[in-house]
Amino acid sequence: MSIALLITDRDVQPLRRAIEAEIQGVTPVWIYPDIPKPEWVEMAVVWKHPPEVLRAFPNLGLVSSLGAGVEHILNDATLPPGLRITRIVDESLTTSMRNYVLMAVLSIHKQLRFYLSNQQEARWEKPIQIEIPLRIGMLGMGALGGSIAASLAGLGFEVLGYSRSPKDIPGVRCLHAGDTTIAGFVRQINLLVCLLPRTADTESILNYKVFRHMPKGSYLINVARGAHLYEKGLLDAMEDGYIREAWLDVFSEEPLPEKHPFWRHPGIVITPHIASITNQENAAKIIAENYRRWKEGQELLFEVDEKKGY
Amino acid sequence: MSIALLITDRDVQPLRRAIEAEIQGVTPVWIYPDIPKPEWVEMAVVWKHPPEVLRAFPNLGLVSSLGAGVEHILNDATLPPGLRITRIVDESLTTSMRNYVLMAVLSIHKQLRFYLSNQQEARWEKPIQIEIPLRIGMLGMGALGGSIAASLAGLGFEVLGYSRSPKDIPGVRCLHAGDTTIAGFVRQINLLVCLLPRTADTESILNYKVFRHMPKGSYLINVARGAHLYEKGLLDAMEDGYIREAWLDVFSEEPLPEKHPFWRHPGIVITPHIASITNQENAAKIIAENYRRWKEGQELLFEVDEKKGY
Repeated sequence: MSIALLITDRDVQPLRRAIEAEIQGVTPVWIYPDIPKPEWVEMAVVWKHPPEVLRAFPNLGLVSSLGAGVEHILNDATLPPGLRITRIVDESLTTSMRNYVLMAVLSIHKQLRFYLSNQQEARWEKPIQIEIPLRIGMLGMGALGGSIAASLAGLGFEVLGYSRSPKDIPGVRCLHAGDTTIAGFVRQINLLVCLLPRTADTESILNYKVFRHMPKGSYLINVARGAHLYEKGLLDAMEDGYIREAWLDVFSEEPLPEKHPFWRHPGIVITPHIASITNQENAAKIIAENYRRWKEGQELLFEVDEKKGY
Repeated sequence: MSIALLITDRDVQPLRRAIEAEIQGVTPVWIYPDIPKPEWVEMAVVWKHPPEVLRAFPNLGLVSSLGAGVEHILNDATLPPGLRITRIVDESLTTSMRNYVLMAVLSIHKQLRFYLSNQQEARWEKPIQIEIPLRIGMLGMGALGGSIAASLAGLGFEVLGYSRSPKDIPGVRCLHAGDTTIAGFVRQINLLVCLLPRTADTESILNYKVFRHMPKGSYLINVARGAHLYEKGLLDAMEDGYIREAWLDVFSEEPLPEKHPFWRHPGIVITPHIASITNQENAAKIIAENYRRWKEGQELLFEVDEKKGY
């Protein structure tokens, strides 16, 4: 019996070694495309996996995403039925994402880009308002969003959260779909942070119809998925003054094409999907533990509800 | 009897109104140069005050800085003897400074400037190392430095502190002059944050002889005083590779002259002394309270020890 790593965007030798160390060698760990015996494969760990590849394993029972997102698995039309699906919720992934969001929030609050731009012209200028007052709205209050909302509140920021179901996070005013609509939510904030899971319901959720309910001169940080943002809607909202500045780490097409208007927009900061990256050692622990639990018929860690999509 | 505000770099009408509200109107608050009766002045609140002006008040007994620093008072050669000196230690000043330092630390950790620079050329590039591992050294562990060191440790960073006398801050490895020299301290870190008070002992403390003990490719954040940094020493240390990137908010001459080499140095970020600014409402409370305590012969808040210089 074996575990297959179907990961095409990075070197996963360290992940293989770490999983082997965790399971103490009995089960071989194979890296795609080098899978000597497809019928041995019981568990697959996937990230940007080639289409149809999951069909090659007749005895596959468990699929783990290498990250927090699972839409690449759920959107695979060739996914065999009856699989159990898990994901990685890794503390270092949360820390890493939190650090990106804090960096962006503080840079907005302190107007870092105003000074960087002035520096180009050797211009010493103190703004009239030294710090931008922020009311931060966290869209998505799951493991990542909830923890980051709490960190921001801990730094003294005013934070509101919005999610499908009710949440209770100290220091954060938690609203949910039963309290108000997204439009009603964004009306109360001037900085929107998107940390939603990607599901059919959340696609293009960041669009002009939402942005136009925000106060003029608002801010956006998207670190979830490119598909959450309707890109043309952001450009229009910036043109009309609703959004002053956007920090984007994820895009509907990655790498972001060289001709894309985002690159040269003066109000947009682009980072190349680096806000957060899974630590392979931590991922290995969760993968090995879930393999063991699955073999022994125990409850799995971070199992995905296919209907909810996360 | 009256309080005089000798502050030349900002509008202090809000401060005057806030102090008057605190002391409930019995004592007039005058703003320099409009001081109708110099002999009435018992307390002066100063920031960038004109030279010799303190001599004009024969009944002056108490001088408060408008900020955390008091070197502008202690370095005033015309300071009348026997005055008591206080300063403002304001929570919003700490928060504001902490936010600047966090922004700079996280921008370094996440390599923000690498992406901003790539964006100019529409270049999508993930660095091999997504996050720079940091060992942060806090130079100066007073009210500001100690609290900011604790915040950084709370975010999971490795933090060492260095101060004249021993300190004890949870999560921070506190060294002091009895344990090691500054050279011994900086050898253990790769990001130096300066939050020292300005005294005769700390002038030019950030110099080549210190920087050359740091690992190659280290980082510097100076948010204390321009006089702490020997500017030529930083340029040399950057040339020789000891310092890769410096975030500077304070300079020996402010505004930083247009011809200064810092402006166009690719490794230097310049902000125009905005890291932290005293909230006038909070300052008013401390000023009014100290005036009352001084009149009633009680212990003063945040009184300065002239010998120590802070």
